[in-house]
Amino acid sequence: MAGGPVHEALAELELVDHHCHGVVTGPLDRPGFEALLTEGERWPGISPFDTPAGVAVRRHCAPVLGLERHAPADAYLARRAELGPREVNRRFLAAARTGVFCVDTGFAPHPVTTPAELAEAAGGVAHEVVRLESVAEAVAARGVEADGYADAFRSAALDAVRRPGVVGVKSVAAYRTGFDLDPARPADAEVTRAARRWLARGGRLDEPVLVRHLLWTAVDLGLPLQLHTGFGDHDIRLHRVDPTHLTDWLHLTAGTIPVLLLHCWPYQRQAGYLAAVFEQVYLDVGLTLHHVGPARARAVLEEALEITPFRKLLYSSDAYGVAEFYGLGALAFRRGLGELLQDRLDADELGLDDALRLARWAASDNARRVYRLPDAH
Amino acid sequence: MAGGPVHEALAELELVDHHCHGVVTGPLDRPGFEALLTEGERWPGISPFDTPAGVAVRRHCAPVLGLERHAPADAYLARRAELGPREVNRRFLAAARTGVFCVDTGFAPHPVTTPAELAEAAGGVAHEVVRLESVAEAVAARGVEADGYADAFRSAALDAVRRPGVVGVKSVAAYRTGFDLDPARPADAEVTRAARRWLARGGRLDEPVLVRHLLWTAVDLGLPLQLHTGFGDHDIRLHRVDPTHLTDWLHLTAGTIPVLLLHCWPYQRQAGYLAAVFEQVYLDVGLTLHHVGPARARAVLEEALEITPFRKLLYSSDAYGVAEFYGLGALAFRRGLGELLQDRLDADELGLDDALRLARWAASDNARRVYRLPDAH
Amino acid sequence: MAGGPVHEALAELELVDHHCHGVVTGPLDRPGFEALLTEGERWPGISPFDTPAGVAVRRHCAPVLGLERHAPADAYLARRAELGPREVNRRFLAAARTGVFCVDTGFAPHPVTTPAELAEAAGGVAHEVVRLESVAEAVAARGVEADGYADAFRSAALDAVRRPGVVGVKSVAAYRTGFDLDPARPADAEVTRAARRWLARGGRLDEPVLVRHLLWTAVDLGLPLQLHTGFGDHDIRLHRVDPTHLTDWLHLTAGTIPVLLLHCWPYQRQAGYLAAVFEQVYLDVGLTLHHVGPARARAVLEEALEITPFRKLLYSSDAYGVAEFYGLGALAFRRGLGELLQDRLDADELGLDDALRLARWAASDNARRVYRLPDAH
Repeated sequence: MAGGPVHEALAELELVDHHCHGVVTGPLDRPGFEALLTEGERWPGISPFDTPAGVAVRRHCAPVLGLERHAPADAYLARRAELGPREVNRRFLAAARTGVFCVDTGFAPHPVTTPAELAEAAGGVAHEVVRLESVAEAVAARGVEADGYADAFRSAALDAVRRPGVVGVKSVAAYRTGFDLDPARPADAEVTRAARRWLARGGRLDEPVLVRHLLWTAVDLGLPLQLHTGFGDHDIRLHRVDPTHLTDWLHLTAGTIPVLLLHCWPYQRQAGYLAAVFEQVYLDVGLTLHHVGPARARAVLEEALEITPFRKLLYSSDAYGVAEFYGLGALAFRRGLGELLQDRLDADELGLDDALRLARWAASDNARRVYRLPDAH
Repeated sequence: MAGGPVHEALAELELVDHHCHGVVTGPLDRPGFEALLTEGERWPGISPFDTPAGVAVRRHCAPVLGLERHAPADAYLARRAELGPREVNRRFLAAARTGVFCVDTGFAPHPVTTPAELAEAAGGVAHEVVRLESVAEAVAARGVEADGYADAFRSAALDAVRRPGVVGVKSVAAYRTGFDLDPARPADAEVTRAARRWLARGGRLDEPVLVRHLLWTAVDLGLPLQLHTGFGDHDIRLHRVDPTHLTDWLHLTAGTIPVLLLHCWPYQRQAGYLAAVFEQVYLDVGLTLHHVGPARARAVLEEALEITPFRKLLYSSDAYGVAEFYGLGALAFRRGLGELLQDRLDADELGLDDALRLARWAASDNARRVYRLPDAH
Repeated sequence: MAGGPVHEALAELELVDHHCHGVVTGPLDRPGFEALLTEGERWPGISPFDTPAGVAVRRHCAPVLGLERHAPADAYLARRAELGPREVNRRFLAAARTGVFCVDTGFAPHPVTTPAELAEAAGGVAHEVVRLESVAEAVAARGVEADGYADAFRSAALDAVRRPGVVGVKSVAAYRTGFDLDPARPADAEVTRAARRWLARGGRLDEPVLVRHLLWTAVDLGLPLQLHTGFGDHDIRLHRVDPTHLTDWLHLTAGTIPVLLLHCWPYQRQAGYLAAVFEQVYLDVGLTLHHVGPARARAVLEEALEITPFRKLLYSSDAYGVAEFYGLGALAFRRGLGELLQDRLDADELGLDDALRLARWAASDNARRVYRLPDAH
């Protein structure tokens, strides 16, 4: 195993996972588990276990359940069922050694833990991140006139973020329109016209004008804004979610809210560029880390950190559904960042105090600073 | 040299080269050889030998001809001429240890081997891949009315794919329009209008509507479709051949034909994303491997496999013209994949059985599965 | 420390820095120094020292000033002030062991060295590169009618490049419009109309037609043209400065002037593609090298050289303002290229003579050839 003072320090540090979701509370059969293992789907003849993430689960998660490393998928699932969801979730959440969770509660096609349940299972603290598209869609579902949409959305968003424990908001504009949007704040009349089209049509919020309006409403709310960028499921048009398409909008919103670029892969260098030239931009490589697995986590982090200021990298798991991804994300992050820093230390490219400081910043302090969380005990 | 069980297994495995071309049958003088060594051209004062591919030829191909490693270009070409094309081709094809070739017969500016001749020289089996643009251009050359173009093309394509030994089709839409096309199947009237424009103008098929129509005709044919993506000669507009521009078309054609993304570099991560989220998408890094050479093959494969399901990576050489590229492509693939898997095995990130299985899949089984080829003996 | 014949050869070679700027001649306080350390700005709570470049300065530049490696930022700045700008500049320029500087004199918001002063401080030779946007803006500032703009600009550009010591021209079209421009030479009437708009509006040259006209005027001048591509400050829209957007323009201008793609990151592979398929295209990874630092210079160079012909890579520091970046750029280049070549030599992927030749080409001969500079003594 990897050794040295940086690895030891990272092993001790309690992580702040600034972007994650709930864990499925009930039992999962094979189709159910496999569906959560991939951003694709279950396809005949192609098991989601035969992916970098699947291999990493069998390697790193099997021992957490008391199995041999590289246990076969069948044995893994049998053991998982035997232990039951409560114990499985507890084990992986404990293994993640994460002290703080900022939970996006706007995506939950399955019955999943609430932030409080997640925190309890992990022995940590949970905060909430409000997904603004869900707020907008709830406003539409309750019924609203087109010319009242803007006020109703703003008001609902304000109500949502004023609830105790809310530390930020999130947008999945990447999934709805991509980022090649007009960057300007839309005029009221434009919003009303777009709302008329959308409310007549129904469905999820994908009117470009309303997506822009949502991003500008986030600015008004004043909380840190998480933006999905890069990698996701097949609903993404990857070439339209390169975060550098946001450059004009970042110019217009400079001096307002922190913007946290999530995932980023394969645009982690582009995200790093934005973090290097815009005060308000931060990034993580969540979701990516458990999908590429510990074998490639360091390579992705190396690119993410090529020019990124060390105050700008955060940790997230972006785990959803299966508790394995909390454990795997945390492992891949600790291992990947540890290797990166330890090798630079060994090559005398970095001093020990600096290496330890950068590890602490990325693992927790940067997130505490951006979200104004209390210091670690 | 690289050692360990994965390297040994890959050395033994007979490859399936799912995308290649013929080899020049006659002698090649220096200008002729150098022109085939590069995707560029011969330029005064800049030898195609002074490239990663040229260095790799002098290093890895010279010994196959009985010369010292790193033999000078002049000595290399003299020895090549001395042995004669038949013997040179035989040696490199034997060195490639490729059991099956799927040969694109639609590109042959030089007199090259037929699939049968290639198979015989290599001691393997050859299948054919039909290049659809060549079919369309032959239809136009024979003479057709605009309103008969769609039927004539479909009929000619059906005739072409029903010939014995045909296992797939290919499109070079990347060279003609790039992928930022309207994804929808074009209406008949639209096709007729576009055919009128094209037939009046002549030249290669580059009408966007007809390129779309060609891709949809491929869907109707029902065979696996190879798509050139990424790297090629200067006729490519690289930013327009990022395969993620195909996302909408892949949504519309889901559940129909397998789509094999060829080359991909520098978009191998983007191709991996598509392979991870669309059931029908596969990829290779052919052409790239011999151009970057064994020194960088592993790095490119690492990126290609970051999230790609292990059932989705295929091997191709995309060799054309000089037999060296069959040998070099195969060497770079075996070496690169071997290093990747062996290192993960050594780090206990992968079990031995898994490593051997993944090697076998990429080297041959995935291609056999997609093209429904008979199993290896 | 890195050893072996390639490292030794690179340590001995005098570099040709084909693209750099002047060094600030006066003293720099902490805000002044930090502002020059980053492509971003100084932000409360985020020190520019806490970046890969800042860490590299403390590691590699501190010893040049007689401090311990990894000296704290405060100690570094105190020692820098104590030695004074003249001595600081002398030390870093000497450490860079650069024999020839091609200095872009068109960007100098601070009082900086002239090319002659830079050369004298470094004990080398300086040439000049004329920034064409500055020439155009000076023409506008002197006053010109719209219909006289084209002639006046051409005439001023000819005057500028005929001055002794001028070896090339440069464009920052990347900052003004990006590269998704109509590639054709604009008609006279079009230029006049665009000039009318621009002259009425004033400000920097950002009329797309005039930017195109500037690029075509560069073709007429006949000297090598340096083009900023990729990474820069927040004025860049990174997705619009991928150099492959220049493909159509490169087709139209083939056979005319050499085009040198500067910086390139994160598009170094795309730049390598262009260098591999267009005779006139060259590239460097200047600016990038000191921002990513010696810890990542080799990784960036590996990608830049994946398919780039070895005659096509040049060295530049793109240093501006702080002399540290001359030293750091040169160090990162020598170290990164040395590791790349030495490892290939050690793996027997490259012969010794070849490795030494490729080092010499990239370090100086390629630049001497493109700019027709006299041979090294």
